[in-house]
Amino acid sequence: VRAAMAGWARAVRGLLLDVSGVLYDSGADGGVPIAGSVEAVRRIKASGLKLRFCTNETQATRENFVKKLRGMGFDICASEVTAPAPAACRILKERGLRPHLLVHDDLVPEFAEVDKTNPNCVVLGDAAENFTYANLNEAFRVLIGMEKPVLISLGRGRYYKETDGLKLDVGAYMKALEYACDVQAEVVGKPSKRFFESALAEMGVPAEQAIMIGDDIENDVGGAQRCGMRALQVRTGKYRPSDENHPDVKPDAYVNNLAEAVDIILQQL
Amino acid sequence: VRAAMAGWARAVRGLLLDVSGVLYDSGADGGVPIAGSVEAVRRIKASGLKLRFCTNETQATRENFVKKLRGMGFDICASEVTAPAPAACRILKERGLRPHLLVHDDLVPEFAEVDKTNPNCVVLGDAAENFTYANLNEAFRVLIGMEKPVLISLGRGRYYKETDGLKLDVGAYMKALEYACDVQAEVVGKPSKRFFESALAEMGVPAEQAIMIGDDIENDVGGAQRCGMRALQVRTGKYRPSDENHPDVKPDAYVNNLAEAVDIILQQL
Repeated sequence: VRAAMAGWARAVRGLLLDVSGVLYDSGADGGVPIAGSVEAVRRIKASGLKLRFCTNETQATRENFVKKLRGMGFDICASEVTAPAPAACRILKERGLRPHLLVHDDLVPEFAEVDKTNPNCVVLGDAAENFTYANLNEAFRVLIGMEKPVLISLGRGRYYKETDGLKLDVGAYMKALEYACDVQAEVVGKPSKRFFESALAEMGVPAEQAIMIGDDIENDVGGAQRCGMRALQVRTGKYRPSDENHPDVKPDAYVNNLAEAVDIILQQL
Repeated sequence: VRAAMAGWARAVRGLLLDVSGVLYDSGADGGVPIAGSVEAVRRIKASGLKLRFCTNETQATRENFVKKLRGMGFDICASEVTAPAPAACRILKERGLRPHLLVHDDLVPEFAEVDKTNPNCVVLGDAAENFTYANLNEAFRVLIGMEKPVLISLGRGRYYKETDGLKLDVGAYMKALEYACDVQAEVVGKPSKRFFESALAEMGVPAEQAIMIGDDIENDVGGAQRCGMRALQVRTGKYRPSDENHPDVKPDAYVNNLAEAVDIILQQL
């Protein structure tokens, strides 16, 4: 791995980190930090590298998400996080869209400023326990009742790992509604190019000087590479050995975990 | 319509009828017959035409489904019904598959004879209230844990109409699991060619002498036509005016309801 990265890691000026599966494993109990990750974030900040957290997390507001991570010992604040809900709010305002929300209860405050009367689109997040039969039927009826259905999905992940096992992610429910309404969702969040570009702009580093570190072969690694970044896949979180045979996406390198990635990158500087 | 059908309806020897949306509108209260349909079934039987009910209904055993319809006044018995669950049981036995079931509680007895220990496939039906977040995650985990996931879906409908509104059908949930596991479901039920062919064989009428009458432009009309049948779309049930602009499927004729279809067909004989 060190050899593979020696050629390019020394040009790096900024890191984008995925959060769930890289910093910690989420779960009903709040989750647990991945060994070495708290210290790894601290070392990145001490190194002078730019750092931004780039997450598809939609089960909480950025404020509460950061509060949970700080409780685990991570040095992180809300202004360092790029997340789908605030990006979706900008799009809704730009286009005069009034959403029907199918999202986690704890995400609703992110949409406080948005007009939700007489909906003309559906915004879908990782609603978890809110993915009930009744709520899915309701979102479906709103969409099918529109002349031209508009479905905005906060991510397109297939599944993620919690402490008690794998869970279907928002992308699976997006596909259900896409099929039922014969519509294509607009994805806000990774792997959308616009989303990565806003994270890079907020960090102030061009794509070719940035590395994305994530556990999701398609949304983290594939998405970042399509924007011109290098990307590492960690062997934590939802990583599965079969990812290493992915037909389309090949990470610039594999690392066992975030701590190892930071070791190698800092040694190259 | 009469003119359109005059050329071919007189050669007809058998009718395949979809049930939900053609005979009755289903609903939590058991549903209500569509005006004229009880009498229309009686007239078909009196005419000497062969008749078979070809349904994707998976919310009840054939016995209970028929009991409900008889309660509404329909002249129907279980041996006249072609339905996905018995067809799936034959496939499971042929291939030595042991299903994890995600189906409606009332369908479970259809699988009484099937070994369900240590599952090596998932069978998905219209589970309705059983489409909970927990049950979907469980079916997903069974699939993703297999080396080569096998997903058998009892139909691929997008949605259907109940007395209290449109509901997502099994096809939407099939797409969610297909996407999450990167697998293609095997569909048992309409529009599968094998399913229509078994209904024709049970009726003893070749495809070119049979008419399918249904409310679903893709699963009833498109599926039957691909088997060499003529197919009528009724303007009841889930029919929507936009179906008449479907990009791929054009029914041999539209009729307002089953009663009108039977009027026209019997006049041609």
